[in-house]
Amino acid sequence: MSTPAVVLVSGGLDSATVLASARRSDFDCHAISFDYGQRHRAELQAAAKVAASLGAIEHRVIPIDLSAFGGSALTDEAIAVPETGVVPDEIPVTYVPARNTVFLSLALAWAEVLGATDLFIGVNAVDYSGYPDCRPEFIRAFERLANLATRAGVEGGAFSVHTPLIDLTKAEIIRLGLELGVDYGQTVSCYQADEAGRACGVCDSCRLRRAGFEAAGVADPTRYR
Amino acid sequence: MSTPAVVLVSGGLDSATVLASARRSDFDCHAISFDYGQRHRAELQAAAKVAASLGAIEHRVIPIDLSAFGGSALTDEAIAVPETGVVPDEIPVTYVPARNTVFLSLALAWAEVLGATDLFIGVNAVDYSGYPDCRPEFIRAFERLANLATRAGVEGGAFSVHTPLIDLTKAEIIRLGLELGVDYGQTVSCYQADEAGRACGVCDSCRLRRAGFEAAGVADPTRYR
Repeated sequence: MSTPAVVLVSGGLDSATVLASARRSDFDCHAISFDYGQRHRAELQAAAKVAASLGAIEHRVIPIDLSAFGGSALTDEAIAVPETGVVPDEIPVTYVPARNTVFLSLALAWAEVLGATDLFIGVNAVDYSGYPDCRPEFIRAFERLANLATRAGVEGGAFSVHTPLIDLTKAEIIRLGLELGVDYGQTVSCYQADEAGRACGVCDSCRLRRAGFEAAGVADPTRYR
Repeated sequence: MSTPAVVLVSGGLDSATVLASARRSDFDCHAISFDYGQRHRAELQAAAKVAASLGAIEHRVIPIDLSAFGGSALTDEAIAVPETGVVPDEIPVTYVPARNTVFLSLALAWAEVLGATDLFIGVNAVDYSGYPDCRPEFIRAFERLANLATRAGVEGGAFSVHTPLIDLTKAEIIRLGLELGVDYGQTVSCYQADEAGRACGVCDSCRLRRAGFEAAGVADPTRYR
């Protein structure tokens, strides 16, 4: 019998690779996505495709409207998505306040009900280190919280938050995913993808992704508009 | 100028007292409630009344459907609300998986956007110690997480999660609230309150509340059906 795990699947390149990695380790994967008011809605359709094709045993989309709070280019139409290609010294405007804390908390709630103590998330500290909630110390603090917060923690179950990508470059992530059979043509990374999931090619997320395929020396399957 | 704070207001007796306590400390209080699929819907109307009468400068209700996960008598119609009056040795069935983790995470997201680093929550470790996410060690772990998770934390702002009730008995909470002008007739604690907010009088939450008024030696303003 396999061990159940909750895997955060956004529809992007990174989380697809994470799901493939969790499947390789033989976890029964319960995929979770969040409809949080993101302007790039196509990623939710991409998440459903990715979950199905990589063998998740179920996929749930949880509505949680972070745009009610605002404060990010990803949820607030009044803040422009950056297209400079330059990673800023400070936290980027695409940072969504407390996003990974909220997402991991909801994944934890589901894990408790499922009897799972393994969570998977595609955070990465190499290519894009500006987000505070992508750092290893954040992940360790969340594990500690999970063990204090829950019935399973109190009863001795030790939660693990797996971050298989945390030390990989974008090119290494892509090579890993291809090895594991990920079809990156299904994934959407663009911050302003159109309804058909076609990428703009100029936002910072598109630039980072394209550079990753170049560095990995493989063809870029992204559909640009 | 006052300091902004985010205050979790459920509509119950405890969180009303917390809001009054935060106001006494001169915080500008942004009240937040959660529509999480709880069967006792009347508490959301109570939360709005409490927020207005105790001087919150705004009140938001965030929909987050924890009943999608199930696993608790408070969100799953298939699990009965306990009416024994006996606090069990184990974690009660009214425990909602990871509830306070989810609620504090969402409060944190709002706090970041508001520029607030103070959160208030009415957890209590005395009368009802069966919930893992009401313990002081959970609260300290969340503060630590908040400082790693957020822009404000990275930039040096230290989050405080205030828990003014944590060491008080129900009777002490009631005395404190009366001193601060809380109208407990506006609050709803019952796990199965009817639509008009009238309490059943027999669920564990009703019993605990009634015993609190008795121990405090004051009249119980609860509307029973």
